[in-house]
Amino acid sequence: MAMERTSSNIQEQHSEDEKAEKMDSIERIFESKKVPAWQQQLTVRAFVVSFILGILFTFIVMKLNLTTGIIPSLNVSAGLLGFFFVKTWTKFLDKSGMLKQPFTRQENTVIQTCVVATSGIAFSGGFGSYLFGMSEVIAKQSNEENSALNTKNPSLSWMIAFLFVVSFLGLFSVVPLRKIMIIDFKLIYPSGTATAHLINSFHTPQGAKLAKKQVRALGKFFSFSFLWGFFQWFFTGGDDCGFASFPTLGLKAFENKFYFDFSATYVGVGMICPYLINVSLLVGAILSWGIMWPLINEKKGDWYPANLKSSSLHGLQGYRVFIGIAMILGDGLYNFIKVLGITLFGLYHQFNNQKIQKDIPVTSNSSPDLPSLSYDEQKRTRLFLKDQIPMWIAIVGYLTIAIISAATLPHIFHQLKWYYIAAIYVFAPALAFCNAYGCGLTDWSLASTYGKLAIFIIGAWASGSNGGVLAGLAACGVMMNIVSTASDLMQDFKTGYMTLASPRSMFVSQVIGTAMGCVISPCVFWLFYKAFNDLGVPGSEYPAPYALVYRNMAILGVEGFSALPDKCLMLCYIFFAFAIFVNGIRDAVGKNRARFIPIPMAMAIPFYIGGYFAIDMCVGSLILFIWSKINKAKAAAFGPAVASGLICGDGIWTLPSSILALAGVNPPICMKFLSRSTNIRVDSFLSS
Amino acid sequence: MAMERTSSNIQEQHSEDEKAEKMDSIERIFESKKVPAWQQQLTVRAFVVSFILGILFTFIVMKLNLTTGIIPSLNVSAGLLGFFFVKTWTKFLDKSGMLKQPFTRQENTVIQTCVVATSGIAFSGGFGSYLFGMSEVIAKQSNEENSALNTKNPSLSWMIAFLFVVSFLGLFSVVPLRKIMIIDFKLIYPSGTATAHLINSFHTPQGAKLAKKQVRALGKFFSFSFLWGFFQWFFTGGDDCGFASFPTLGLKAFENKFYFDFSATYVGVGMICPYLINVSLLVGAILSWGIMWPLINEKKGDWYPANLKSSSLHGLQGYRVFIGIAMILGDGLYNFIKVLGITLFGLYHQFNNQKIQKDIPVTSNSSPDLPSLSYDEQKRTRLFLKDQIPMWIAIVGYLTIAIISAATLPHIFHQLKWYYIAAIYVFAPALAFCNAYGCGLTDWSLASTYGKLAIFIIGAWASGSNGGVLAGLAACGVMMNIVSTASDLMQDFKTGYMTLASPRSMFVSQVIGTAMGCVISPCVFWLFYKAFNDLGVPGSEYPAPYALVYRNMAILGVEGFSALPDKCLMLCYIFFAFAIFVNGIRDAVGKNRARFIPIPMAMAIPFYIGGYFAIDMCVGSLILFIWSKINKAKAAAFGPAVASGLICGDGIWTLPSSILALAGVNPPICMKFLSRSTNIRVDSFLSS
Repeated sequence: MAMERTSSNIQEQHSEDEKAEKMDSIERIFESKKVPAWQQQLTVRAFVVSFILGILFTFIVMKLNLTTGIIPSLNVSAGLLGFFFVKTWTKFLDKSGMLKQPFTRQENTVIQTCVVATSGIAFSGGFGSYLFGMSEVIAKQSNEENSALNTKNPSLSWMIAFLFVVSFLGLFSVVPLRKIMIIDFKLIYPSGTATAHLINSFHTPQGAKLAKKQVRALGKFFSFSFLWGFFQWFFTGGDDCGFASFPTLGLKAFENKFYFDFSATYVGVGMICPYLINVSLLVGAILSWGIMWPLINEKKGDWYPANLKSSSLHGLQGYRVFIGIAMILGDGLYNFIKVLGITLFGLYHQFNNQKIQKDIPVTSNSSPDLPSLSYDEQKRTRLFLKDQIPMWIAIVGYLTIAIISAATLPHIFHQLKWYYIAAIYVFAPALAFCNAYGCGLTDWSLASTYGKLAIFIIGAWASGSNGGVLAGLAACGVMMNIVSTASDLMQDFKTGYMTLASPRSMFVSQVIGTAMGCVISPCVFWLFYKAFNDLGVPGSEYPAPYALVYRNMAILGVEGFSALPDKCLMLCYIFFAFAIFVNGIRDAVGKNRARFIPIPMAMAIPFYIGGYFAIDMCVGSLILFIWSKINKAKAAAFGPAVASGLICGDGIWTLPSSILALAGVNPPICMKFLSRSTNIRVDSFLSS
Repeated sequence: MAMERTSSNIQEQHSEDEKAEKMDSIERIFESKKVPAWQQQLTVRAFVVSFILGILFTFIVMKLNLTTGIIPSLNVSAGLLGFFFVKTWTKFLDKSGMLKQPFTRQENTVIQTCVVATSGIAFSGGFGSYLFGMSEVIAKQSNEENSALNTKNPSLSWMIAFLFVVSFLGLFSVVPLRKIMIIDFKLIYPSGTATAHLINSFHTPQGAKLAKKQVRALGKFFSFSFLWGFFQWFFTGGDDCGFASFPTLGLKAFENKFYFDFSATYVGVGMICPYLINVSLLVGAILSWGIMWPLINEKKGDWYPANLKSSSLHGLQGYRVFIGIAMILGDGLYNFIKVLGITLFGLYHQFNNQKIQKDIPVTSNSSPDLPSLSYDEQKRTRLFLKDQIPMWIAIVGYLTIAIISAATLPHIFHQLKWYYIAAIYVFAPALAFCNAYGCGLTDWSLASTYGKLAIFIIGAWASGSNGGVLAGLAACGVMMNIVSTASDLMQDFKTGYMTLASPRSMFVSQVIGTAMGCVISPCVFWLFYKAFNDLGVPGSEYPAPYALVYRNMAILGVEGFSALPDKCLMLCYIFFAFAIFVNGIRDAVGKNRARFIPIPMAMAIPFYIGGYFAIDMCVGSLILFIWSKINKAKAAAFGPAVASGLICGDGIWTLPSSILALAGVNPPICMKFLSRSTNIRVDSFLSS
């Protein structure tokens, strides 16, 4: 239930694609094209492109991590841009007569896999959550357990080392299960399937035409978004300056964090996310900042001391953070139990029937024609099983890395004892399998929920005086990296299966991508950390909201509820129950009516950071909605490209912007918003 | 050469329409439709709609008068909106079964004529030029001749009286000439022809479909522009606040008046004006504010005293105003002589050949097929000659009004003796004829040039101590109203000729429209005058730049050149010669290459008010240019509608905005732009 990483709405598009596929066989169209050997799928150019795109996407993910923590699925963009880069390159070589190897869809899949693995580390590395939550900046805000024992400031060296020793375990833990998941269980993996469809469509002759148009749309909006970011920069010469502080809906609404902040990124994210998520965010924003916080604010001096700093967790901020956490935990618990139930039920059926079919809930309508394998499936299965990865490699790999990891990690985090790590590694493969299976069914990776579980268990085990907060956060990192990479890899195996890419090349690509990510992500984070001094400070450009949320969860695990302000615990219980209740209702009324019931997980996010990004995202939704009304086909074909362009352009602008900040070049103008009465004072001050 | 009133680029479109017309006869298509008697063309609903649209357009023209003084042709918008209003109304009645009279193109022409006549008064009434130039606000800025004898503040009563006694003369003076101009000379009147084509196309069955689409586009951009104006309003709570002070190109450029001020009006105006005018404006802005003024500013203390107020005409402001006037006069003189030459040459040929044909320069290529009149021309000529307006009505009308006028005007302006007026009225018919003829050839109304002529002649005749400045300005008004309405009426006769509307209904419509304008325009101006206290102050929202220009011309006429700062006169001579020289070059190189040579008249406008509106207009040009590249047909069909929507929406927003200002409701927020160093000071001031 990693709400910090939303699934894209390609799930719906996917079902239409599936229909198209049924009509004629894709592999027959590709009949004439030879599938290269797996070593030849791993070209140097593929990894050069992956490296460049990996940096781009790491910037984007990092920015999202540090602003609101909502990260859309980037698989489609990765596939699209990978195609564009290599195609341009090969076309150029082709013209100069130096092209040795044509660009195949297998190579495209290798790039997509590698880029997703690289940028995946930017998410699972926890730079916006557990890892940054260890720092003093965040510790100071919660005012609890911020002794030296429970803090650890970021540093390039230990972050890279940490990521290297924990990020590869997930890969080895699920490799042996790929046949069961893909061939036997026929799990869907919606994102993986959608990406495969995309890549296949690019490489069919008329598909490439559409791809070119899409890339052109992406490029146009990329440039626009980049230039818009550049233009905005000039007007941010001071605190609360520029378009990001534009009181679009009035000063009163601005004080309560309701405004449109002209962020191209979140308009793009809103276009990719399903309507329901955007509406849920808005509902949550109205419920919290529109109703609850103003009401609680009136109890100032009654429910909590009136003379506190605005960032103190004993004041209003405490209600914001802990009620949000309660909702996230309630939703997480409900979905954890639900997915676990579906998983166990699914496994029970799979083994009971002993047949190679049936994947319970989602594709039940397609099961009747399964026993007789289609041409596509025969060909894909044959190729998928051809290149094996021996079981012993997986076992030896897992054990080796686990031992190295258990030996190294206590040196990085003294608070994290080796037996905590060993305990995690015993249970990790099972959880990784659960997550990969659940993700295959629902496209919903629960990585951060498993991480939260580790926070509470290891935190309580260690206790606060022994650095339990830090131990909990570190354990969260270990757990999240394992389960997250496991589900990513399985998604890629599915993509590879459908594009006839070898499992071996997928695996190698994922390993290389992960290694690149382990270096790129900390470096990019380091750039942000050094360039923006107020990283992690609430109300700044990069508040990194989840860092505090994670730290507070760790504190809660270690300390209990004693530190919360008055009535806060009661409200937390209410919203915890509310989250479970709403989820229950959503499942009870059926998919059709659930579309109109907000998702509690999404509602919880604006509780802490405010409604402005929800408004951005709703603007994105609105644009897509109107576009769909005008021209449905065009909106479906170009919507994701436009959204990706908006996200990527703004994302890559952060690169020059942080370099400018590092070089000490400050924006020249401050666009300030003053009330009329303040303005009169300022004018008289300036003219005097 | 009324550069304050640009001709639209429909001239080019027109020639394409003409081609289409040649292919098949328009009147054959309309064969089945009966032409109603002239009394039936003048319906009550037509005048109700005209009244409403008249108010709308008066607001727009007034706003343009008071901001930059550039007014695009509104004929097309008037035709479009008139069609839309009455069509909606008749459709509604038709459904309820109460429709007595169908909506005809003749009625549409009546509306268009009436609206143009009404809004024409807003221009020729001189609220942004001679009339407002009499006021103390403007007189104070020039610091010369601002005794009570030479100033007269606006007041509703005398403005209405003044307009009523001068505005009808023009109509009577050219009525007898309509047959010569339209039938015998076959003058083109590009705007009138284009409007007629538009109205004809609306009333053909498939034409109405296009019109509906155009109206929808217009409506969309009207709403957008209105809401944008509304949104901007909230952020203008103080001086130099809001989007109109947005230093889009940086603070340094902003100081030199180079910025994009987000004005929907001027983006729209830019879309309607030919590329050449927009580019000329930009070139002029760069030449003056980019190069010359900064250079002259360095001579401060040398060429002119350093301790002057920025608005003093003895300082930098003097260079700005008088060099601009010199260029306008140079261009005006050149074109006056040129058009007069063409007119005399044309008349000579017309009477020499004694044949009913030949209209020398513009339509020479269409002359061979004239002798045998086409079906359309036969039918149109028959109907045009059917409803005569007796010569005695024109003569009696003209003499009556002239006598009333000569008796009344000296009571309004004591400085304007009755013999000045009599002198003007003796020459006026000839000049009105000249203007109507020139306009028929070139679509260029020279009304303001004839007005300037009157300023100099009457001003010099009266001399400064006898109130020559005021006498000159008042004489300018008398002259401008006569020649301007004369050319407007002739344009409408052409439109009527092509839509089979009776000359009588045209004349009555024009008379009623002019009467409405004589009441509406002063009222609207009064609203602005009362609502915005800083009307006419340089740098304010409504600087009314031409008011000062006209007053200074009057002063120059009375006083001579003694008051100008050092080297200013020399520069004036240079730019006067430059204007004539550039115009000569433009005529010498031929039409094709003249497209790349800027028009001095247009270049002169930003000399005084700065380049910001030129940038707006170039943005409009750019939008239209890119649109034309993408889809030429669509841009041609919808460009004018979009532009009209932008202009009208922003224009009508001034109505609620001035009401809000009158009611004392001030915008709540100030969007301020500070340099980074100033911002630091302000922040420390606010936090202290």
